[in-house]
Amino acid sequence: MDNDRVLIVGGGVIGLSIGWKLARAGKGVVVFDRDRAGGAASWASAGMLSPLAEVRFEEEPLLRLGLKSLAMYPDFVAELEADTGQAVGYRKDGVLLVGVSQDDLADLEFRYRFQKELGLEVAWLNGAEARAREPHLGGQVSAAVWCPGDHQVDNRLLVAALATGLEKAGGTLKEGASVDELVMEGNRVRGVRVGEEVYEGEMVVLSAGCWSGRLPGLPDEIRPPVRPVKGQIIRLQMTDAVRPHTIVWYNRWASSVSVYLAPKDGGHLVVGATSEEMGFDTELTAGGMFELLRAAWEVLPGVYDLPIVETLAGLRPGSRDDAPILGTTAIDGLIMATGHYRKGILLTPMTAHYISELILTGEVSEVIRPFGLERFL
Amino acid sequence: MDNDRVLIVGGGVIGLSIGWKLARAGKGVVVFDRDRAGGAASWASAGMLSPLAEVRFEEEPLLRLGLKSLAMYPDFVAELEADTGQAVGYRKDGVLLVGVSQDDLADLEFRYRFQKELGLEVAWLNGAEARAREPHLGGQVSAAVWCPGDHQVDNRLLVAALATGLEKAGGTLKEGASVDELVMEGNRVRGVRVGEEVYEGEMVVLSAGCWSGRLPGLPDEIRPPVRPVKGQIIRLQMTDAVRPHTIVWYNRWASSVSVYLAPKDGGHLVVGATSEEMGFDTELTAGGMFELLRAAWEVLPGVYDLPIVETLAGLRPGSRDDAPILGTTAIDGLIMATGHYRKGILLTPMTAHYISELILTGEVSEVIRPFGLERFL
Repeated sequence: MDNDRVLIVGGGVIGLSIGWKLARAGKGVVVFDRDRAGGAASWASAGMLSPLAEVRFEEEPLLRLGLKSLAMYPDFVAELEADTGQAVGYRKDGVLLVGVSQDDLADLEFRYRFQKELGLEVAWLNGAEARAREPHLGGQVSAAVWCPGDHQVDNRLLVAALATGLEKAGGTLKEGASVDELVMEGNRVRGVRVGEEVYEGEMVVLSAGCWSGRLPGLPDEIRPPVRPVKGQIIRLQMTDAVRPHTIVWYNRWASSVSVYLAPKDGGHLVVGATSEEMGFDTELTAGGMFELLRAAWEVLPGVYDLPIVETLAGLRPGSRDDAPILGTTAIDGLIMATGHYRKGILLTPMTAHYISELILTGEVSEVIRPFGLERFL
Repeated sequence: MDNDRVLIVGGGVIGLSIGWKLARAGKGVVVFDRDRAGGAASWASAGMLSPLAEVRFEEEPLLRLGLKSLAMYPDFVAELEADTGQAVGYRKDGVLLVGVSQDDLADLEFRYRFQKELGLEVAWLNGAEARAREPHLGGQVSAAVWCPGDHQVDNRLLVAALATGLEKAGGTLKEGASVDELVMEGNRVRGVRVGEEVYEGEMVVLSAGCWSGRLPGLPDEIRPPVRPVKGQIIRLQMTDAVRPHTIVWYNRWASSVSVYLAPKDGGHLVVGATSEEMGFDTELTAGGMFELLRAAWEVLPGVYDLPIVETLAGLRPGSRDDAPILGTTAIDGLIMATGHYRKGILLTPMTAHYISELILTGEVSEVIRPFGLERFL
């Protein structure tokens, strides 16, 4: 009977959500999680669901995927909260994408035009209009794009609820369990090894974030091209006097820094994040903290007096084209769900739905077909 | 026999150094230390011995006291290192007092003239000359005052060596011992109470930093007027590529921030410190960290890539006139050695010498006489 089960390598939001969906459908599932906090993107993230604010100029299919997942969020959250009785801090605040300098404004206008071309619901605001929407914005903010469709969750509450959901539905979460090897038999997976113990299963899902390409036993030609992209992040404690209610996003042209400030229900204001190609390093740096604090202070001067609750760095799993790697592989029974880069939290409902569907029915949906590992081969 | 001993309330550099001197002279000593790290100035400090760089315009007697203590440092350190076999990181690097903006320069020139009037050995350098002395200085630095007589120690090594010295000489250090009450008998001290236990002694030295005014049992008219002045500080890890060898001090006029960068033998670059009237609060704030990082980056741009090893806040014991409170009080057997504000490490040899002399001989030296508690009465 154990041979029937699905083994999931990685207990971030991707692995847990797939596990939860499978367990709900009656499938045997074991999720292996090495360390919830240590550098993991799901833990370090700010829980932004912001495909509109993040629109750039090369990635319309990825944008559509994000919008699809965003649309799935209300039902996904309702189901998860009903299953577990745990709130995940889903907030439909909207994002104010703000600019200060002339260069910022030129960039903002360019983005705005592109958003409009894509048919997205966004609005151009002058400084005063932006401050009317978020009174904590500083006087330096000269214009903004209002993205009402962008939302957020509390990423840590989401991780916790998914873990509960998985276990309530009959799945198993093995915490502190580092998968040491993918165990193969000819061209199909047989299971995974953790220390001395081999767990057998019908399928293995690789959802180990930026560590996905490093799993021993994985044949070289199947290694997903994911790399760590370091993000430093600061959590501030909001006070009664300084409590913004809108997510503010500031692409600071002069320093090529993109900073968001996301107020959370629990009282944290999450200020993130740098984007650094530094391998698996998770050290905080003077420059990283400086860039975040400067940008935050320029657009929300009230942050100046807020206590720093936490500083940390996480590692996003970046793929070669910034899009996730989803679906079957040339190895029987091995499924990929990794490489979500900056959009892991956003893409969770979509990934959980289509990957669990694939596992349960064998069908690869047209939605995820363009995002298979084959595109890199 | 126990009635003969001296009880010292507070195990920072002041209390420990007095205890060490007394124990060396054969006196029985117990030093009570509540918590070496928690907010204590000796631990949070950067170990600057910089009376020249810190010259301001109101405090010549205090300057002279600092210069006197600085001159005592070589012998003090030699004796302590010989007693204990522990190095304290004494370095005669000198301080570069730097400026960037026109306002900084005007301020710097004003200070320089005042330093010269006082007969101090300092030299004016243009930007290129300053960079010749410290190649890590950024191109923005437009002038500097070179203060070769300013030195530094490693404050944490100093605390550790003094604790060893005290115990090697026969004194007792009670760590984690919070003194709950000063125990009096008529108009003289009888001892101190820690929890349920009363320690008797001939004399009590109050050297509890910013907590000195709060000791229960202390008559109101004897409470030293000390208050906590919060300093946030960052420790960076130097690398082979970024390893300045000179202390850099930057009074940034535009933001009224005074930041020093002190390279330590162990590889830390200590960047401090804010100066905030916030009561006993030791939280880090966004603004505090931002000011330190911005100023550090402006004058030593190489800090940008350095890892942050530690962030903390300490509480300086500020007196009403910024000078220490030294000597006898109206209560028999009660000695004060507190209120050293920004200069606790600098003033340690002087304080240890004259306070232990006072305890051993009953004589109040002319050196410390102007700094008695009476001046506030």
